[in-house]
Amino acid sequence: MTGVIYERVALIGLGLIGSSLAHVMRQQKLANRITGYARSAETRATAKRIGLVDEIHESAKAAVKDADLIILCTPVGAYGKLAEEIGPHLKAGATVTDVGSVKSAVVRDVGPFMPANVHFIPGHPVAGTEQSGPESGFAELFLNRWSILTPLPDSDKAAVAKLEAFWRGCGANVETMTPEHHDMVLAITSHLPHLIAYNIVATAADIEDVTNSEVIKFSAGGFRDFTRIAASDPTMWRDVFLNNKEAVLETLGRFSEDLALLQRAIRWGDGDTLFNLFTRSREVRRSIIAAGQETAAPDFGRRPKE
Amino acid sequence: MTGVIYERVALIGLGLIGSSLAHVMRQQKLANRITGYARSAETRATAKRIGLVDEIHESAKAAVKDADLIILCTPVGAYGKLAEEIGPHLKAGATVTDVGSVKSAVVRDVGPFMPANVHFIPGHPVAGTEQSGPESGFAELFLNRWSILTPLPDSDKAAVAKLEAFWRGCGANVETMTPEHHDMVLAITSHLPHLIAYNIVATAADIEDVTNSEVIKFSAGGFRDFTRIAASDPTMWRDVFLNNKEAVLETLGRFSEDLALLQRAIRWGDGDTLFNLFTRSREVRRSIIAAGQETAAPDFGRRPKE
Repeated sequence: MTGVIYERVALIGLGLIGSSLAHVMRQQKLANRITGYARSAETRATAKRIGLVDEIHESAKAAVKDADLIILCTPVGAYGKLAEEIGPHLKAGATVTDVGSVKSAVVRDVGPFMPANVHFIPGHPVAGTEQSGPESGFAELFLNRWSILTPLPDSDKAAVAKLEAFWRGCGANVETMTPEHHDMVLAITSHLPHLIAYNIVATAADIEDVTNSEVIKFSAGGFRDFTRIAASDPTMWRDVFLNNKEAVLETLGRFSEDLALLQRAIRWGDGDTLFNLFTRSREVRRSIIAAGQETAAPDFGRRPKE
Repeated sequence: MTGVIYERVALIGLGLIGSSLAHVMRQQKLANRITGYARSAETRATAKRIGLVDEIHESAKAAVKDADLIILCTPVGAYGKLAEEIGPHLKAGATVTDVGSVKSAVVRDVGPFMPANVHFIPGHPVAGTEQSGPESGFAELFLNRWSILTPLPDSDKAAVAKLEAFWRGCGANVETMTPEHHDMVLAITSHLPHLIAYNIVATAADIEDVTNSEVIKFSAGGFRDFTRIAASDPTMWRDVFLNNKEAVLETLGRFSEDLALLQRAIRWGDGDTLFNLFTRSREVRRSIIAAGQETAAPDFGRRPKE
């Protein structure tokens, strides 16, 4: 048990990550009072019904009043306006962080609205499922996942250490890096995979020679794996791609180059190139399993409907 | 309980599919005697040790002697030579089928060696895991998956019906189609997904700005999903791409076109194009779950190592 780290925490946004944070904070008693804000009345009503947080507010500025930790959990495209709204209402000495999948853009959009007497420490827990909304959260979401913090050069060391302790209390490991490095690392480990997954689902849906019903029936051949991350929240992902343009275009360019090489190998019947490239991948998966970031069970441990 | 369908079954190849067939045939009592052949002495020794089949042979021609059903379960690149070897030793009235992921090439490679008094009915169970070898098989692999048969125009109807009953006895659903259509359907539902998965793993491994250790640590952002199918058997997949060239190049061309559109949308900040495309994918996943081809549990029902 870690014990209370922040007396009062405000969750701005109550989707998968926000609601998971509410659950784990209560389970681990990391905060004494949790306030919440969501833009949609429906989300607020659901959060109220399931008792997700202690207070639900109809505005972000009301939710952050007296809060010691404020966590932005909306799609990153909404951050700028939210920061402008809450800036004047933040308590002196409070810490403002976020859970967005891009970090340079967050520094750009949120930074200017942060008062000098507030600690602004951008963050990103690399954790999630394909589900979204206030009822999708669960306390174990961050367990053994990595939470990345991207403190600014002048960030207060004690405030950063406290936020690290908070994430550890949520069950996560913590690493710090620059926002720019974060954006390149996540471009390849998360953003490009999502883009590719969304794209292949669209390609499959549009092929005239194969019916959609055939795509669905025979999806166990591999396709279905891609549909999981392609079922993620469209607003969140639109905002990610609009806000990590350079790193995504860079990794996408490399992906396309590599793919052209494979395409050529197939066209010319170059089995050795294919075999050698296919052989490298097993080791990567083994390392991910050894690092505790993936289940060792075949087929993700899936259980088919019987 | 279906009861014995073929008196004597020969498995040519004892990897994931061959060994799963052995298990399910025994569990469901679909055959009275199972013989097996594997090229490698190590695989034969393992199969013997675990009692996988009733008889292990050092040659394919010995394994098929007196068999009523012969199932080719090796990588498809080995089929031609195997067919040439077993052709003269097949029992009159026997059925020869296979489990290969391509079908036109199998008709081309195996067909010429099949005697007129034998039923040659190519097949493909759309089922698998990322594991391989004689110890990776399990009886439930085919449960609720689809097995595709591609009978030839002159295939005997009774022989096809019997093979269908066999696959149903294994727990699978059965659909028949032409080899050409099969190859196009599987190009999009299986071959392209594998190619893309292998490719992104290679791209990630080669990025200089991001260490391999970072790729592994932060793989829960999406990347790790791709590593599962990219951990599949390299020989099998090399043979698939070499033997379904046209359909794979066709679907790959479409994939790259669609990806160029997304790339352009990112470059020009066209959020609507991204949002609209991302919105289509959820429905596809819902349909796959409704069709019993995927678990409804978030994150594939994965359980992280604690």
